[in-house]
Amino acid sequence: MADNSQMERLVSLAKRRGFVFQSSEIYGGVGSVWDYGPLGVELKKNLKERWWRSMVHERDDIEGLDAAILMHPRVWEASGHVAGFTDPMVDCRVCKARFRADQLDQMQCPQKPSKIPGEADQCDLTEPRLFNLMFKTFMGPVEDAAAVVYLRPETAQGIYVNYVNVMQSSRQKIPFGIAQIGKAFRNEITPGNFIFRTREFEQMEMQYFVAPGDDDKWFEQWRDLRMQWHVDLGIAPDKLRLHQHSADELAHYAKVAFDIEYEFPFGWQEFEGIHNRTDFDLGRHQEYSGKRLDYMDPVTKERFTPYIIETSLGADRLALVVLADAYREEQVKGEERVVLGLNPAVAPIKVGVFPLVKKDGMPEFAHRIHNDLRGSFPTFYDDGGSIGRRYRRQDEAGTPFGVTVDGQTLEDETVTVRHRDTLAQDRVHADQLVSYLLEKLAG
Amino acid sequence: MADNSQMERLVSLAKRRGFVFQSSEIYGGVGSVWDYGPLGVELKKNLKERWWRSMVHERDDIEGLDAAILMHPRVWEASGHVAGFTDPMVDCRVCKARFRADQLDQMQCPQKPSKIPGEADQCDLTEPRLFNLMFKTFMGPVEDAAAVVYLRPETAQGIYVNYVNVMQSSRQKIPFGIAQIGKAFRNEITPGNFIFRTREFEQMEMQYFVAPGDDDKWFEQWRDLRMQWHVDLGIAPDKLRLHQHSADELAHYAKVAFDIEYEFPFGWQEFEGIHNRTDFDLGRHQEYSGKRLDYMDPVTKERFTPYIIETSLGADRLALVVLADAYREEQVKGEERVVLGLNPAVAPIKVGVFPLVKKDGMPEFAHRIHNDLRGSFPTFYDDGGSIGRRYRRQDEAGTPFGVTVDGQTLEDETVTVRHRDTLAQDRVHADQLVSYLLEKLAG
Repeated sequence: MADNSQMERLVSLAKRRGFVFQSSEIYGGVGSVWDYGPLGVELKKNLKERWWRSMVHERDDIEGLDAAILMHPRVWEASGHVAGFTDPMVDCRVCKARFRADQLDQMQCPQKPSKIPGEADQCDLTEPRLFNLMFKTFMGPVEDAAAVVYLRPETAQGIYVNYVNVMQSSRQKIPFGIAQIGKAFRNEITPGNFIFRTREFEQMEMQYFVAPGDDDKWFEQWRDLRMQWHVDLGIAPDKLRLHQHSADELAHYAKVAFDIEYEFPFGWQEFEGIHNRTDFDLGRHQEYSGKRLDYMDPVTKERFTPYIIETSLGADRLALVVLADAYREEQVKGEERVVLGLNPAVAPIKVGVFPLVKKDGMPEFAHRIHNDLRGSFPTFYDDGGSIGRRYRRQDEAGTPFGVTVDGQTLEDETVTVRHRDTLAQDRVHADQLVSYLLEKLAG
Repeated sequence: MADNSQMERLVSLAKRRGFVFQSSEIYGGVGSVWDYGPLGVELKKNLKERWWRSMVHERDDIEGLDAAILMHPRVWEASGHVAGFTDPMVDCRVCKARFRADQLDQMQCPQKPSKIPGEADQCDLTEPRLFNLMFKTFMGPVEDAAAVVYLRPETAQGIYVNYVNVMQSSRQKIPFGIAQIGKAFRNEITPGNFIFRTREFEQMEMQYFVAPGDDDKWFEQWRDLRMQWHVDLGIAPDKLRLHQHSADELAHYAKVAFDIEYEFPFGWQEFEGIHNRTDFDLGRHQEYSGKRLDYMDPVTKERFTPYIIETSLGADRLALVVLADAYREEQVKGEERVVLGLNPAVAPIKVGVFPLVKKDGMPEFAHRIHNDLRGSFPTFYDDGGSIGRRYRRQDEAGTPFGVTVDGQTLEDETVTVRHRDTLAQDRVHADQLVSYLLEKLAG
């Protein structure tokens, strides 16, 4: 059962604290596109950086890439997107609106919002027609068919067409992988659920090139590694599960596929996919480009077209997993507090610094601490409003530690360190604060 | 005088070492769009991270933002882009090609490559017509005028429309700034010079909101800070200069503007702009959205529409400045070597690790060192080919240090540290390597 009120409260928090704003809000917004505010951009940056570190920096067998959004239009013929990346659509002859033919029961006629379009007495529907989900645009000064290019609907193809260039310049040998973070665009008919399904989104994809015959082994390894990555990030394990694609769910290019699903407030949904794409992609690009994309094993001298194991994670979906998993409402001494229990490793702000009151030299001492700490981790100084309200704001921002300068500080240079989750308060000498916090943040 | 051969050699190095590849190269490429390879993505990441740290993390008065590429179409009416972001174009009635009316002398007829289109006996040109440089696309399932949206031609507008949301959620007061890194798109008629002028590019923009009357002071401060930032990055000061826009160069929104220019192999060109945009942007968005975007000073209670000082840096142009500035060819003992003298702080790889030969336990020892070092900084292990060739490859990659494991290492656990620029070689004990390199990298 979908819990809409929980999503509403999360969306409200996200706006209030500057995680996510509706795009072009002052103009009434633009359909299912979102902007990341000051805290959101840091959270997403931390998640992307963590993924990049584990995929690229900590491994010798994976190289990074940042391919452009605009690609040669033949890429999308080879990939199958021009012919097959479509949804079946029907038009209503009465209200003139367009609906997905396979989701009529979930949709509402925009002209008569209380009516279901599928009901024959309301809507007179056309036969389904296929509608391509790629955004198209025109490159060069002449707007004609020759200049049509698409906004990439997935980042993966940028990796495939660069695979020989990457392999040669980096001196990798198969098996090896290429990782990429970048934007992709899909003209979804029914986007929704906040940043879950949007028309503009960011992917974190890794394509691993292996010899045919080794693909099952690598597939299993990557499926398990990716699941473990989310557990290590601190996502509640009982809200994570693997879903194997049945024969009729499998994409045309896939031999085996698993989704990693999270139990969002709106139900179990996929946020990462692990796919055995076989030699489909390189085979097609070889056929369409006329360039050799096969590989000669330097030891056995055998030639083959590599198989590809793909791990494809939505950066915005991961951000939503992290936010939804961290969100909680609690009673503390009879008062309700909203807390984002973010893993300190990805929290936008690690430490809030507060003078108890705005006098007696407390602000000056707190500023000094703020300046000492910020070289080591993101720190936020706040002297606005009561100390309780300042704590609550940082609870909502997911800040794991609060440092308060009070009367005793001025006597013995100790400060109070408040722990977001346990509400425990430790007394620490200002000189030991950096090492104290570094130790807590590492643990 | 443009030095084409130097650019060609730089482009060739960029491909060979995996900095930059032509997009969709196996399909013949796509007009002036480029992909960043394994080293390029790290270089650009380091540059972006350095900018973000100096703009956002090290300051209390600037917040980060990551707004979407797709925005409400009214944004571009308010900004003036729908009406005014145009180039004058002429068509040739003979060859049917289209040219920029203000650059006829620099262009070639594509049908008759040896002929200049401006020559009356070759081309019969139409009157100039205005051509909009924004890429347009269609959002939603119906491709009609109501659903036209544009790929943003600049990231700045995403900041302006979010300014109230950012200010409220972050509790900033004027003066304060908003910084953003993101892609923008311009359907340039004459792109070129490698990654200098491309149709898809990345901007690093900061918009600083000030009270009218304080704008000149803040403008000067930001102009000087930005210039100093490039000097601190290590760019040769004699290749940097400021160019003040004359009255006829000023954009319609600007009161004062300076370009920061670099002397590229193809001449002096702008890569960052600092603009006093006055209250034009917020005034227009207030008018077009009907939302109040003025500001009430909490102390004086005065209401005003903030002025904006903009610093707008091209991420790809900065990457090209860094590459061009670092590129040099030298004679070493009668042999030529190509070196990228990158600032170690932004070099993609900090340390190369090499066993002198692939036997006697040297590879095992070198692997151990590689694993010790990689926790502290990006490290590359290479045992392919002669040690001289491996040094040359890392010289071309801009790697500041090379660590070689040789016969003596196996006796006393010392290794050779080779310095890219001076070619000096130090003997260092393996146990002291991390601290030795950290000290050198910090200096």
